[in-house]
Amino acid sequence: MILSASQVDHKADPDRREGVIGNRPNPQAFLDQSPKLRLDVLDRLHDTSVLSATLFDRDLLVELAKLAAYLQLGKFPAAHALEDKILAAAFFEPSTRTRLSFESAMLRVGGKTISVADAKTTGVAKGESLRDIGQMFNSYADVVVVRHTEQSAVQELTEYLRIPLLNGGNGSDEHPTQALADWYALLKWRPEIAFGTIPDEFRLNIGIIGTPGNMRTVKSFLTLALLFPQNINHITIFSEMADPLGDEIRELTNASPIGIDFSQNLKQSLEYLDVIYMNAIAFLGDGYRFFGEEFMLDRDSKLKPDTVILHPLARGGELCTSLDETQHNLYFNQADGAVWVRQALLLSIFGRIRDVVPTTYLA
Amino acid sequence: MILSASQVDHKADPDRREGVIGNRPNPQAFLDQSPKLRLDVLDRLHDTSVLSATLFDRDLLVELAKLAAYLQLGKFPAAHALEDKILAAAFFEPSTRTRLSFESAMLRVGGKTISVADAKTTGVAKGESLRDIGQMFNSYADVVVVRHTEQSAVQELTEYLRIPLLNGGNGSDEHPTQALADWYALLKWRPEIAFGTIPDEFRLNIGIIGTPGNMRTVKSFLTLALLFPQNINHITIFSEMADPLGDEIRELTNASPIGIDFSQNLKQSLEYLDVIYMNAIAFLGDGYRFFGEEFMLDRDSKLKPDTVILHPLARGGELCTSLDETQHNLYFNQADGAVWVRQALLLSIFGRIRDVVPTTYLA
Amino acid sequence: MILSASQVDHKADPDRREGVIGNRPNPQAFLDQSPKLRLDVLDRLHDTSVLSATLFDRDLLVELAKLAAYLQLGKFPAAHALEDKILAAAFFEPSTRTRLSFESAMLRVGGKTISVADAKTTGVAKGESLRDIGQMFNSYADVVVVRHTEQSAVQELTEYLRIPLLNGGNGSDEHPTQALADWYALLKWRPEIAFGTIPDEFRLNIGIIGTPGNMRTVKSFLTLALLFPQNINHITIFSEMADPLGDEIRELTNASPIGIDFSQNLKQSLEYLDVIYMNAIAFLGDGYRFFGEEFMLDRDSKLKPDTVILHPLARGGELCTSLDETQHNLYFNQADGAVWVRQALLLSIFGRIRDVVPTTYLA
Repeated sequence: MILSASQVDHKADPDRREGVIGNRPNPQAFLDQSPKLRLDVLDRLHDTSVLSATLFDRDLLVELAKLAAYLQLGKFPAAHALEDKILAAAFFEPSTRTRLSFESAMLRVGGKTISVADAKTTGVAKGESLRDIGQMFNSYADVVVVRHTEQSAVQELTEYLRIPLLNGGNGSDEHPTQALADWYALLKWRPEIAFGTIPDEFRLNIGIIGTPGNMRTVKSFLTLALLFPQNINHITIFSEMADPLGDEIRELTNASPIGIDFSQNLKQSLEYLDVIYMNAIAFLGDGYRFFGEEFMLDRDSKLKPDTVILHPLARGGELCTSLDETQHNLYFNQADGAVWVRQALLLSIFGRIRDVVPTTYLA
Repeated sequence: MILSASQVDHKADPDRREGVIGNRPNPQAFLDQSPKLRLDVLDRLHDTSVLSATLFDRDLLVELAKLAAYLQLGKFPAAHALEDKILAAAFFEPSTRTRLSFESAMLRVGGKTISVADAKTTGVAKGESLRDIGQMFNSYADVVVVRHTEQSAVQELTEYLRIPLLNGGNGSDEHPTQALADWYALLKWRPEIAFGTIPDEFRLNIGIIGTPGNMRTVKSFLTLALLFPQNINHITIFSEMADPLGDEIRELTNASPIGIDFSQNLKQSLEYLDVIYMNAIAFLGDGYRFFGEEFMLDRDSKLKPDTVILHPLARGGELCTSLDETQHNLYFNQADGAVWVRQALLLSIFGRIRDVVPTTYLA
Repeated sequence: MILSASQVDHKADPDRREGVIGNRPNPQAFLDQSPKLRLDVLDRLHDTSVLSATLFDRDLLVELAKLAAYLQLGKFPAAHALEDKILAAAFFEPSTRTRLSFESAMLRVGGKTISVADAKTTGVAKGESLRDIGQMFNSYADVVVVRHTEQSAVQELTEYLRIPLLNGGNGSDEHPTQALADWYALLKWRPEIAFGTIPDEFRLNIGIIGTPGNMRTVKSFLTLALLFPQNINHITIFSEMADPLGDEIRELTNASPIGIDFSQNLKQSLEYLDVIYMNAIAFLGDGYRFFGEEFMLDRDSKLKPDTVILHPLARGGELCTSLDETQHNLYFNQADGAVWVRQALLLSIFGRIRDVVPTTYLA
């Protein structure tokens, strides 16, 4: 290509260089509500596997988000905290986004990485027992992130591990660290979800487009939503499925005071939704199913002015790029925060928080 | 998955957390027999390629195992020893296990890694000359681990390299660093193999299930076994092949005082075997061949009480998991030790032993 | 393999260990012509994407080559300069050579890497928007190297990036950092190209075997050649194509005082060529086209005694290995230098030159 000077020189266009678009809540405003970190809470993660979002109660989620916010603000230099640790990324189902996010998080806190980008193509996946695979990771790494197409494989693998396992997505089951990124964005956006009690008339209405029963990101997101009954009014599930919850999730929602609605009419519901959680794909057996046009959002959708949209990305046609420049776009902030919340998680799992957090920040 | 608290929290079950099962010989007991490292011996590895197990004589194997044992015990902090070095992992034939083991070893001693997990799918393997590939590694790395489906490729590649090459498995030929891991486990299990003379009636009988002539791990293991004629009585090869040794290995075994037997009846021989070396796969041309039922071991096999089993893993059906919890299981220890013996090898090849070993440990 | 002692022990053969063959110009001799680095020039690279070779003018190319030469000579220890930076290698079209070269360069200056060796096989490439991919790299890395089969993708991606992008080859368009390596070799070979005015009768005649209009390495090499009109006499393009330049390149060459010739008869032209730039492959749509026998060179080709050959490697049959041992072979030096010039580029892009260069070396 023959480029003009401004095209050749990337930095010549300051507007494009700014780059960060959409809703960017301030981590400091979130921390101002509760500046002291509670180590007694975070210590519960020490040497612990993260299989399910059900591991987190409200305190643990909030304290982890606070640690992530401090890291994002650069308050605690943690660049050498995990220098003696190796993270193994074992992606039996490939996922560039999740793998790179974990690798980047590990490198940012000084750790090292070894990776299997696509275990499907290696002997590891061809009839090799999870027992022997577990033994391998015990010997080579200090923590292992696993993504697997089969729901049971991740749970079974922990039985053979001496090191913590982080579930990076197991079939249609769970994706707990994605849910941490989702809620890290929401808690920064509205700190009162974490720290206050929202007056009845302003309690949040959340819309989830997708099927918690068989979409892992949606399931893990909903699981964490149930931790905030005092501040969430209703959760509406928009799905084409006859039974979008499934038995497991229904058990959780039945035990919650938060009202759960079901609807197939997103457009009609937009006027009362404060948060909309979208997802490109329904994981149905071996394939993917895309939602129909009625579940698409664009700049002309009748959203309330302060409604925010979450999406784990990558997106399909369901989320129009015309929304990217608006304040509805919290999904870029959500993606940005993922790498910080994973750093916070890694520091906690290795029990290294005391090494990086000055005592003045401790409760 | 909806998990109970103990399922969610990995560390809640201390028995499972313990994790290490099977026979776990103590590295310290091994070192107590000969605590001083002989640098004059280890220096022979400086700047040297490891193509074949025949590189190692008895002294070199034993001193390398001693260095590995010290590293495993954490006696010498070596976490920054190779900070200025890059290891290239070049797997023209994919092998997750061997690749990650080398990468982990390099990272544990402070080095860095660049990797080709599956060179088959890249231009590198499509008619590109080994000469140009060698030139590439000369420029980008300080040591290269190569696995290749073709026996001759690894040897030929060294002709174009200015940096040491470690053979990570070349076709049906050799896998010398696997053999180092095998013997590191055995020497820890019975230090007298390395340091003493076992009385005639207790000299070891070793059974090898497989075909040294065309199985690289078996070939390299057998090559190192021949270094201990004073302590090994017989080696029995169990194979379905008419000529399991092949010409090259026969030349070695003919020159050795250790008796070599052949048998197709494993079960009948179990009563006298002290060590059994198994392997999942016979590498025959492009395919793999699995052994029949007569060569399988499980908890009901009539093993002597103190017999140990080695297996490079991953296993197929030939080695039943019912043996994992028994003292016959030395294969998990063997896998665990691989990463330590590879660290010892890397430190030796880069001539960095003096940098990490206090003089009090030197002979 | 049963090896003799000298085969087993790689270092036993000093001649082979020497290894570096071909023409090896001295970086110090190049620097002696102009020892002071001009930071005002190199600072132009700070925080800048490198999409096209047209980014470089004569001063910038020469100063970058000087920085590379200092790094190659080990004058400035830069091993920790980029410890807080992550390079993402995003290869939508696989290229082992280019990927490893960038990763190695980043590691040599202390940085860290995350990699997608073959994005074709991941969700990233399947209809995922470049917008979302850009957002991902913004969050996970500090600089991204991209190779892509589509010419426009790399340019488009920069629109969504807040971090610099280095074009690692985009379709049939450009490969600017390869051209930096090419010219780094040539400037060391003849420092007067950079610093002097070659007398008329000795000005260089360059032959390019290939089609600048649709071969990215050739296009980028030619673009940089046009920076030296006072020292280059003629450039002859040897190609089977009717219009080897194409409109874009013709615009550049028309504006240059350097004469451009076209020929299909390489052998007849050899007697007057000082530099020959070869390339294995013509990138034609989805396929590759190999040149015919008339464009091959070997030891019997009638080259002038001091003619040098460049080739980005890997080669096909067009460049015979019989030339490797001769002084015509500058291509191994060119490959060797690539990793140094990429280190210089990374240090400049991150504005870290002042951190590693002692003031005594600054203009």
